[in-house]
Amino acid sequence: MTDTQTAAPTADPKLHEDGSLERLTIDTIRTLSMDAVQKANSGHPGTPMALAPVGYTIWSQFLRYDPAHADWPNRDRFVLSVGHASMLLYSLIHLAGIEEIGADGEKSGKEAVSLEDIRQFRQLSSKTPGHPEYRHTTGVETTTGPLGAGCSNSVGMAIAERWLAARYNKDGFTLFDHDVYTLCGDGDMMEGVASEAASLAGHLKLSNLCWLYDSNHISIEGGTDLAFDEDVGLRFEAYGWNVIHIDDANDTKALAAAIETFKATSDKPTFIVVHSVIGYGSPKAGTEKAHGEPLGEENVRLTKQAYGWPEDKSFYVPEGVAAHFHDAIADRGAKLRDEWVKLTDTYRTEYPDLSAELDLMLKDELPEGWDADIPVFEADAKGIASRESGGKVLNAIAAKVPWLIGGSADLAPSTKTDIKGKPSFEPGNYGGQNFHFGVREHGMGGVVNGMTLSHLRSYGSTFLVFSDYMRAPIRLSAIMEIGAIWVFTHDSIGVGEDGPTHQPIEHLATLRAIPGLDTIRPGDANEVAAAYKAVMQDASTPAALILSRQALPTLDRTKYASADGVAKGGYVLADCDGTPDVILIATGSELSLVVDAHEKLIADGVKSRVVSLPSWHRYELQDQAYKDSVLPRSVKARVAVEMAGEIGWAKYVGLDGATITMSTFGASAPLAKLADKFGFTVDNVVKVAREVMETK
Amino acid sequence: MTDTQTAAPTADPKLHEDGSLERLTIDTIRTLSMDAVQKANSGHPGTPMALAPVGYTIWSQFLRYDPAHADWPNRDRFVLSVGHASMLLYSLIHLAGIEEIGADGEKSGKEAVSLEDIRQFRQLSSKTPGHPEYRHTTGVETTTGPLGAGCSNSVGMAIAERWLAARYNKDGFTLFDHDVYTLCGDGDMMEGVASEAASLAGHLKLSNLCWLYDSNHISIEGGTDLAFDEDVGLRFEAYGWNVIHIDDANDTKALAAAIETFKATSDKPTFIVVHSVIGYGSPKAGTEKAHGEPLGEENVRLTKQAYGWPEDKSFYVPEGVAAHFHDAIADRGAKLRDEWVKLTDTYRTEYPDLSAELDLMLKDELPEGWDADIPVFEADAKGIASRESGGKVLNAIAAKVPWLIGGSADLAPSTKTDIKGKPSFEPGNYGGQNFHFGVREHGMGGVVNGMTLSHLRSYGSTFLVFSDYMRAPIRLSAIMEIGAIWVFTHDSIGVGEDGPTHQPIEHLATLRAIPGLDTIRPGDANEVAAAYKAVMQDASTPAALILSRQALPTLDRTKYASADGVAKGGYVLADCDGTPDVILIATGSELSLVVDAHEKLIADGVKSRVVSLPSWHRYELQDQAYKDSVLPRSVKARVAVEMAGEIGWAKYVGLDGATITMSTFGASAPLAKLADKFGFTVDNVVKVAREVMETK
Repeated sequence: MTDTQTAAPTADPKLHEDGSLERLTIDTIRTLSMDAVQKANSGHPGTPMALAPVGYTIWSQFLRYDPAHADWPNRDRFVLSVGHASMLLYSLIHLAGIEEIGADGEKSGKEAVSLEDIRQFRQLSSKTPGHPEYRHTTGVETTTGPLGAGCSNSVGMAIAERWLAARYNKDGFTLFDHDVYTLCGDGDMMEGVASEAASLAGHLKLSNLCWLYDSNHISIEGGTDLAFDEDVGLRFEAYGWNVIHIDDANDTKALAAAIETFKATSDKPTFIVVHSVIGYGSPKAGTEKAHGEPLGEENVRLTKQAYGWPEDKSFYVPEGVAAHFHDAIADRGAKLRDEWVKLTDTYRTEYPDLSAELDLMLKDELPEGWDADIPVFEADAKGIASRESGGKVLNAIAAKVPWLIGGSADLAPSTKTDIKGKPSFEPGNYGGQNFHFGVREHGMGGVVNGMTLSHLRSYGSTFLVFSDYMRAPIRLSAIMEIGAIWVFTHDSIGVGEDGPTHQPIEHLATLRAIPGLDTIRPGDANEVAAAYKAVMQDASTPAALILSRQALPTLDRTKYASADGVAKGGYVLADCDGTPDVILIATGSELSLVVDAHEKLIADGVKSRVVSLPSWHRYELQDQAYKDSVLPRSVKARVAVEMAGEIGWAKYVGLDGATITMSTFGASAPLAKLADKFGFTVDNVVKVAREVMETK
Repeated sequence: MTDTQTAAPTADPKLHEDGSLERLTIDTIRTLSMDAVQKANSGHPGTPMALAPVGYTIWSQFLRYDPAHADWPNRDRFVLSVGHASMLLYSLIHLAGIEEIGADGEKSGKEAVSLEDIRQFRQLSSKTPGHPEYRHTTGVETTTGPLGAGCSNSVGMAIAERWLAARYNKDGFTLFDHDVYTLCGDGDMMEGVASEAASLAGHLKLSNLCWLYDSNHISIEGGTDLAFDEDVGLRFEAYGWNVIHIDDANDTKALAAAIETFKATSDKPTFIVVHSVIGYGSPKAGTEKAHGEPLGEENVRLTKQAYGWPEDKSFYVPEGVAAHFHDAIADRGAKLRDEWVKLTDTYRTEYPDLSAELDLMLKDELPEGWDADIPVFEADAKGIASRESGGKVLNAIAAKVPWLIGGSADLAPSTKTDIKGKPSFEPGNYGGQNFHFGVREHGMGGVVNGMTLSHLRSYGSTFLVFSDYMRAPIRLSAIMEIGAIWVFTHDSIGVGEDGPTHQPIEHLATLRAIPGLDTIRPGDANEVAAAYKAVMQDASTPAALILSRQALPTLDRTKYASADGVAKGGYVLADCDGTPDVILIATGSELSLVVDAHEKLIADGVKSRVVSLPSWHRYELQDQAYKDSVLPRSVKARVAVEMAGEIGWAKYVGLDGATITMSTFGASAPLAKLADKFGFTVDNVVKVAREVMETK
């Protein structure tokens, strides 16, 4: 029997009508979801209705979670990868009585999601946006909606638990042993990112990870048999997961037994295929009409009738339901957390160093002297590739910040992101600091986000051109405001012989375009050091470090300005006396090129200035006075030089300036030939500079 | 036995040294590859050395290909998804004696790849760039390098064959029956895009598709057991493929038997797991050192010694080898093509309409009157969403251009891309015009590219925000200069309640940044019609059509300029007398907003102009005189209004203009609330316009 050929799950709600608090709670979740979508006249009712028994069973019987302390580090994680089913999560959070934690990390004294919040579903500034948003609503572990994202995040969370346990647990001190539950759907299963993450999770034998796959045979265009009739369970066996089938999502006993099996499994992750009926109990049940639109008032009434529910009551929580659900969770969770707090108190005495380290990590802070060993690079005309200097700086920091961990999508020898002398994170060595994500960029992105959400300072690296594969998780790191670090090397046509498929052109612009992402392209080794320093100090801003394949001269900082200016995003690197005739602006590998052009211009009596602009994001955060001091409005003769597409540079050069940038894809050839072909030469920079001076 | 637990393939080349032409040809491929990489001092020798027997066997014994006519429409396709192993393909093309077809579609009289071209491997303007480039080198069926791309393209090619066969084959006229062979590696297998494409291919039962998976147990970071130990064969069984294992890539008899099995299989695609030794025969064999760098001169010598090859000869093709290989292919292929040409001549008489249609399609031309039924939309203040008008226009064209086919990543009811009344492309109905790609955006992108490479005019659609998932194939469509059509709806915060995860902000900029991609965001229904018209007439430029979820007023074209201006990318839509005081620039849903603001300004005596700028790509192709007529340099008071990020707009508004754009992510709320919150109101546009007029 494949996943798509199974006995139909129960379609008749009456079969389950036993008047129990369990049933009442499940139907409360269902009706709150229907009502909220109906009132908003927008949303997805069908999946919350189908999965209410699943959410109920996990939370009431298994989830180790203290509603009064949603930030307890050893809580089990519940990830709603089917983010469109947000009302399921909001209903669970509401009924569990989770207490809100404010932006300051302190309890606000409010409910995380009140009944009024549910009434305000999908309204401006409500706690209940269309898809669950991390930071915005307490109890939401990660922002989901883009399919596959939650799945891949959950692998990162499970990895984080393994790592925390390996590093901090000691005999008699099991500080970390939490599980990660993920609800996923057909859409997740079709997305490649979830395949990548599942393959990695199987390889890593993450037995603390349980995915519950809602197999409802319905997609937006119709039955899943239109496009998706593979045997998903068999696929997960191939990945090395333990696979369990549940014939009916309403069978809470079978669900509980499956989760018991998960908890008893110690050598692989668990995949539970749950057959369900979308829009369960409604006239639209089992059809795509129940997916992404309100049921309609009459159908809501008929559905409530089918549930044996008061037909005319909206947002109705029967007496005893909230207490029943809250108590089931809190009795278990509060006790476990209390024990944990006591344990950590003793741990503080027995393992003061580890305890202090853990405290810092959980507060997203850095230890004293964390940056003491970051190298200062001597001036050197031959120089060093920024991927190389990046590796040195990363290693210097990781030696002091052991929770700075990450890896590459099978390119570490090229991206230089290995933490030297440290073991790999593998089954049997979950304390390892080097991660092998495999050739799975998108999965890596989701996993790094998941690790970061558990307070690890995590990084993922690949070639810049392959950032295309992982745009979605990069964007989500920016939406969530988490300090994931994306290390992208081989940042231009400097890639050379590998040719246009491997030479990024548009990628700098596409990363700069993501709101809140700090895209930094340092121009020499000392700018690399300054970039890492700046990035590490901000744990709520994700950063993309853009590094070169080829060697970059290390500039003489006794002659030019300090690289500390990187923290401001842009700074005057080299200057003239008085108001400049022309300003040369560059980033990354083109910085030394414009410095050489600048020296030539200065020697020729031209008043030239060089502005290094490694981070537009940081530069735009500066006040106008600073920006005017770097790029005075009166100086309109400006030339920007970057081995990348032109888009965005007009903001800094204006209508009167010029750019030396790439207007086409690159080509396969040694870099020197390409630099000639595309105009990245000192002579050309000087020529264009003189042209813009004449025009102005 | 899983794929990663097998008897080691033969490591000793002597075992195969039989002096046969087969062996000589295989070793010629190997040594050419080694020599080219060594001379270039850059490249990937190991995989060509490992897979030479596989390439040899497919080409010499099976590939239906006429080296003298590389553009024969019914040729078998050979896709090198492991694009880094480009020297394998160049060696095969060279030894097969494929004749070059020039940019004009005519034979140039040259070899597609000469021995001199191989000596110029990875050099500027050579025929042998680092990764194989479609259009650039005859015999290259698709541009590969980004892993997984070739795999997904090959699914599209197999789909195209099924569709062509269903539409054009008649009793006694089997015009189309070609197969598609794809060489893929561990990297492909780890990439989610290949998983998506494989799942779709299994669902579609594409029995004309054969993937040969090079399982060499080596990745860049080391053994695949670092990150990848799933049972790949079992996974493909789960997808519904026929899976065959070959223990040794050198066993050409076993390879041939497996391919015979593929050819005899009529109900599913075939997956052949080929166990190989990377860098076969070299001192670096079986290690990651053989992957991505030259072997070194001494190792090249030792390897040749191991092969029993003249040690000191470089680029050596023993006598008889080229003839043997060429004849094996040409004897079969030329005969088949000759028969095909005769068959199509008769077909032309018996089925003149279908024949004429096919001829047009293969020439990438459009039938007479193809645009005759494109609707003209009457002025309408309420209007129509551009996804809706897009659906109408698409249907009007598809009725005349039946090979305009495509579909959606499970969002057709929302993207409105169904061809109405036409069946779905499904097993049993391969003539269907509506494609259900499933929730697999990345896979869809690769498949649409593959279909387009077979001359179908194909489209793929999803929400704009999910274009993030498919950046790599969009980029490849631009690199290859093929007319894939990407339809992206729900194009802004106009998405409303679904919130920030579903509201594109940076996506317009990121698409505009791709060189050669025509990103068009039409402002009303008639601009949608004009956009489709423009796109259809250019089969060598991929286009991204950016369409709204919400209704857009249909502008009164008797009052304002014709939408024909869309073909130029930008045009003056509404004007004043004389030189404008201010220019309002907008695209898409903001066009009617600035028209309303314009009317208010005009009524207040301000000389205002509205410029509609739906395609920056097309606008930049216009001459300076035209551009100056639309945006006169003297008018510096300019306001650009777009519900998207600001990046790029400075090029049109300069340092003195202003933008009303998005500087943050969106929010979950009804659109009207969001428009207020983010300043997309007539009053705000008027206010900002007055501000920029004052500053100037």
